[in-house]
Amino acid sequence: MTPGRLIGVGVGPGDPELLTLKALRTLRSADVVAHFAKAGRAGNARAVVAGHLRAGIEELPLHYPVTTEQPRGSGAYRDAIRNFYDACAATLAARLDAGRVVAVISEGDPLFYGSFMHLHVRLKARYPTEIIPGVSGMSGCWSAVGSPIAQGDDVFTVLPGTLPQDELERRLADADAAVVMKLGRHLAKVRRALERAGMLARAIYVERGTTADAVTMRLADKADDDAPYFAIVLVPGWAGAEHSR
Amino acid sequence: MTPGRLIGVGVGPGDPELLTLKALRTLRSADVVAHFAKAGRAGNARAVVAGHLRAGIEELPLHYPVTTEQPRGSGAYRDAIRNFYDACAATLAARLDAGRVVAVISEGDPLFYGSFMHLHVRLKARYPTEIIPGVSGMSGCWSAVGSPIAQGDDVFTVLPGTLPQDELERRLADADAAVVMKLGRHLAKVRRALERAGMLARAIYVERGTTADAVTMRLADKADDDAPYFAIVLVPGWAGAEHSR
Repeated sequence: MTPGRLIGVGVGPGDPELLTLKALRTLRSADVVAHFAKAGRAGNARAVVAGHLRAGIEELPLHYPVTTEQPRGSGAYRDAIRNFYDACAATLAARLDAGRVVAVISEGDPLFYGSFMHLHVRLKARYPTEIIPGVSGMSGCWSAVGSPIAQGDDVFTVLPGTLPQDELERRLADADAAVVMKLGRHLAKVRRALERAGMLARAIYVERGTTADAVTMRLADKADDDAPYFAIVLVPGWAGAEHSR
Repeated sequence: MTPGRLIGVGVGPGDPELLTLKALRTLRSADVVAHFAKAGRAGNARAVVAGHLRAGIEELPLHYPVTTEQPRGSGAYRDAIRNFYDACAATLAARLDAGRVVAVISEGDPLFYGSFMHLHVRLKARYPTEIIPGVSGMSGCWSAVGSPIAQGDDVFTVLPGTLPQDELERRLADADAAVVMKLGRHLAKVRRALERAGMLARAIYVERGTTADAVTMRLADKADDDAPYFAIVLVPGWAGAEHSR
């Protein structure tokens, strides 16, 4: 039996029209379409491709384990996550061994902070593997806002909101343009770091980037520090914009 | 007369199949499609959309001025560039005033180091404006190589190769994952900075990312320091990859 093929498919930031032609062709010809989702949720990537799957395709939801009772970073937490990805890889490997083409859909771009990477690292040596890049979530956000992010010799940095406040402040102050991801319960800390780095005035808060119910505002105008995990803050660069006019 | 609409359209990293559905729909319904190109060249973005333009559409090539006789960063250079973008904006404004829909195509993503930003800043206050994000050139490159770039709490940084060696070294050493763009004649310096930051062994050189004639290799294996302007170096992060298996 010829083994199948593993394809990581980026489906873009949320708007189903931001799928690429290549992603669409791949989804229509795949035997199996797998996606990650929280238990009890449909998954954002699944929602993006919903209108594009052919009848009869095998869908494989991969539900993250509930790890809220484990401290993040603890050995028990890491074990639960590792076992989960091992089990997912085994599930996919069974299809690949049977010669099937397995597409794993990822929000944004598969190799840019995507869960697909945990399957890729486990399976790429054993099966033919292909990656179809996607429009990143952050591109979707700055485009929705119409806010140029970086130009010319700008240094651009992506920071996880999980970093300590001092480190966020130091790195923000050292960048021309930045994106802070994974806000969730870290927004108050991120706001303080931006303020101390002198960047709060130009920071833009974006929630559900390219979807119909997107929320965007200057972070300085946001009255509370409530944010979903996938909200992001944009700090546009291009300080030279005024001079270049 | 109702004014027209200005649309910045990201066409992705080079593979025509990496156009989004939204970009395709926009190009098919626009009245005018403009693109930047060097004098005497067709332009990479134009090549990506060549198969998708309807007959009879007005094409508007915007040819960069020849500035090689001016020192980069000099007043004369800046004036030439500013006058060029002013003239381009005036050319587009004439179509917009006539009620036409003008799409400006950009390689990669329009607001991420794209020339479109120079038109956007000049026209956005006067005309309805929309941005269609695209797959970035760097996403195309790390996907073509199959090299996961960043995961989890990684800090990811984009650096122009034009920076001084010391600054490149300092910023590389401070990042978990990085991309160095605009290599051209800066590759020898970038290589030294990577070596001093202890990152040369994992650096990957990519030329013409997602096109049929792509060139990729470990930078350490590249025997010369010749590189086109649009070649990039990837420094994959995700140091935890081995632990998470």
